[in-house]
Amino acid sequence: MTAQRLAAEALGTALLLIGVVGSGIMAQTLTDDTALALLANAIATGCTLYFIITVLGPLSGAHFNPVVTLAFALKGEHPWSLTAAYIPVQIIGGIAGVWLGHVMFDLDIIQASTTARTGLNQWVSEVFATFGLLFVIFGGLRSRPDAVPTLVALYITGAYWFTSSTSFANPAVTIARGFSDTFAGIDPAHIAGFIMAQLVGLVLSLPLLAWLFRSESH
Amino acid sequence: MTAQRLAAEALGTALLLIGVVGSGIMAQTLTDDTALALLANAIATGCTLYFIITVLGPLSGAHFNPVVTLAFALKGEHPWSLTAAYIPVQIIGGIAGVWLGHVMFDLDIIQASTTARTGLNQWVSEVFATFGLLFVIFGGLRSRPDAVPTLVALYITGAYWFTSSTSFANPAVTIARGFSDTFAGIDPAHIAGFIMAQLVGLVLSLPLLAWLFRSESH
Amino acid sequence: MTAQRLAAEALGTALLLIGVVGSGIMAQTLTDDTALALLANAIATGCTLYFIITVLGPLSGAHFNPVVTLAFALKGEHPWSLTAAYIPVQIIGGIAGVWLGHVMFDLDIIQASTTARTGLNQWVSEVFATFGLLFVIFGGLRSRPDAVPTLVALYITGAYWFTSSTSFANPAVTIARGFSDTFAGIDPAHIAGFIMAQLVGLVLSLPLLAWLFRSESH
Amino acid sequence: MTAQRLAAEALGTALLLIGVVGSGIMAQTLTDDTALALLANAIATGCTLYFIITVLGPLSGAHFNPVVTLAFALKGEHPWSLTAAYIPVQIIGGIAGVWLGHVMFDLDIIQASTTARTGLNQWVSEVFATFGLLFVIFGGLRSRPDAVPTLVALYITGAYWFTSSTSFANPAVTIARGFSDTFAGIDPAHIAGFIMAQLVGLVLSLPLLAWLFRSESH
Repeated sequence: MTAQRLAAEALGTALLLIGVVGSGIMAQTLTDDTALALLANAIATGCTLYFIITVLGPLSGAHFNPVVTLAFALKGEHPWSLTAAYIPVQIIGGIAGVWLGHVMFDLDIIQASTTARTGLNQWVSEVFATFGLLFVIFGGLRSRPDAVPTLVALYITGAYWFTSSTSFANPAVTIARGFSDTFAGIDPAHIAGFIMAQLVGLVLSLPLLAWLFRSESH
Repeated sequence: MTAQRLAAEALGTALLLIGVVGSGIMAQTLTDDTALALLANAIATGCTLYFIITVLGPLSGAHFNPVVTLAFALKGEHPWSLTAAYIPVQIIGGIAGVWLGHVMFDLDIIQASTTARTGLNQWVSEVFATFGLLFVIFGGLRSRPDAVPTLVALYITGAYWFTSSTSFANPAVTIARGFSDTFAGIDPAHIAGFIMAQLVGLVLSLPLLAWLFRSESH
Repeated sequence: MTAQRLAAEALGTALLLIGVVGSGIMAQTLTDDTALALLANAIATGCTLYFIITVLGPLSGAHFNPVVTLAFALKGEHPWSLTAAYIPVQIIGGIAGVWLGHVMFDLDIIQASTTARTGLNQWVSEVFATFGLLFVIFGGLRSRPDAVPTLVALYITGAYWFTSSTSFANPAVTIARGFSDTFAGIDPAHIAGFIMAQLVGLVLSLPLLAWLFRSESH
Repeated sequence: MTAQRLAAEALGTALLLIGVVGSGIMAQTLTDDTALALLANAIATGCTLYFIITVLGPLSGAHFNPVVTLAFALKGEHPWSLTAAYIPVQIIGGIAGVWLGHVMFDLDIIQASTTARTGLNQWVSEVFATFGLLFVIFGGLRSRPDAVPTLVALYITGAYWFTSSTSFANPAVTIARGFSDTFAGIDPAHIAGFIMAQLVGLVLSLPLLAWLFRSESH
């Protein structure tokens, strides 16, 4: 039972990273227009989020994201013992996904990104992106639980475009993308800044969302 | 209770403007092909409309648009006292969204657009765009209420393309876009013309839609 | 009651033509890449079909297409008296939509297309396109009626690409597109060939679909 | 009864190949940007999968793919006698679809592809692509059966981008694409390698998915 839950988190995060990194590699190979590459990247990521959340939701909750797992734990809706297992499994799954992506595209398996993603504006962007992700998850669970896969998929597809950081909003994804010197990569030196911003987003969002979605307002 | 409703209107309109203006900035930065920029802009806006209406609908009705609030008020389905609060909150939320977009993309926060959007054909376009928006909202509420977020999202995604004005159809959005000298901006001198056209659209649409969707015809 | 049904058919067909012709004009204006223009055209048309069928379905059945009206009539599911009213109303609505599109984009209202669309391969394409449209409508009504708007929208979005004629599949749309010398136009001299092919598609499809979807096979 | 089931498999696979090959021809004709062509190809294929699975699912199960038919047979959910009939019918339907596509686009009907698609990385990609397809089908049937058409459509739309082989994941599709020297073709000499990889994907996936989705974990 728990084995399947952890396997689902590892597999889902691996599939997510294959979706993000693989589509970035394909797009970058086929066009010089960065907007077109980002469009393909955003659409493929949205498609991936839809199917991994729909299929694996009943097994593990379909977090695939330490910030989401922490949010459920802090709200008392996810046991801390399981949280301690979910997070490393998400990170390992994500890195494995990047590596399988490299194998499929015949690239060196072990890479380190050289893409700079840093600066106050990108950190603000990650704080906001994390808020938005928790907004659609917790708001969606309240207003229309069956729409959560679509909500997350469309939120991220849009947020690729309306945030300067392209909305990582996920520490496991951030770490794993450090392992790929391709379109979707992030210089490992800039990972800590992104994760810090995502945690700030988590801490700021929880009380705000708790107030906004408090049950009396229904 | 009312605090959450007003917060939902402010937040939703802010998110809408971040979606519209942010994606325009990103697209404009990445490509020289205006059609590709508009495609990204339209898709990101559609994604944003889907998630803000789905998540915030149960809280505030998810208007995010003075014309929509006025339409419900004129139909006797929204109290005038609340209408007087909704409209300024939508405008303030929209402007705040534009400013947060500028912060995320490291641009000057305070800007004024220099993009001309005026002329009879664009005003006709805004009259029509407003009719179309009210058509999918009131028609959708009658035929399939659970589909309203999808209806509005797909209507606007399409209407970016099939109207010459790219379908603002929203006075709060129009005012807020005056504050951004980027892809989605509108010269402040041209805001009044657009809003006038939207109000004409409202006044023409209500009796027409009331006749078309009168209950005996079901 | 009948007035609303006919108004719904006229309005829906007008909106369909605004979607098709308007998005073609916008796309053609913004890019030199014909594939990108067709992608915008296809997406905007799909969006339009989704919202007009969802909203107007309960009023008129949302045919917007003489071939669809004839198919229901031939199956005995639509009275012939109403059929005789639907078809001219669809054609008039379609032409009115094209004209409003021209007004919105500040073009001459009265135009005649000069775009050649003829030849055996395009006629085969229209026969097939009409079969496909009736296949998703009658098959969808049998397997999943609530999905018909999505089925028609996605069918046409795809069929823009996988048929050489870009799937008009609709005599009212074909006639109306003759009135626009823009991206989506068709030379009036070639309209009869397209409509003939669509009627052949109708005649071939009805027995085939009746056999395929006969009720015992459920 | 059985005649309709087999006709549904033949028709559905023919439509799938028209979607894949036809949209590739159209895209290749209209643009020099390969990423844009792949985007159109991926979107048109996703649209096609959605409507063929939704419409024909109740008739035949909507396999359109020997690997899927074999997977159901190996799980004891599809009779072997019917399996022996489904597979040739899918292959014949697929080839007929390619030929009709050629007719519609006024190309030589009989062609053989010259597009190289081979090498260990592409075979790994097909193993993975087949796993992903079975994952969304069997996982979707367990978590949300009504979403299976959307799951398969979005999975393949994404997988066009995140696998180096563009995810054929279907022996009937692979054979049929050998008959088209256009965008979506595959050199007949490379078909066996792709099918072998798809069968390896099938054999590896079944026990893994059986364990992941075992009923106690619900």
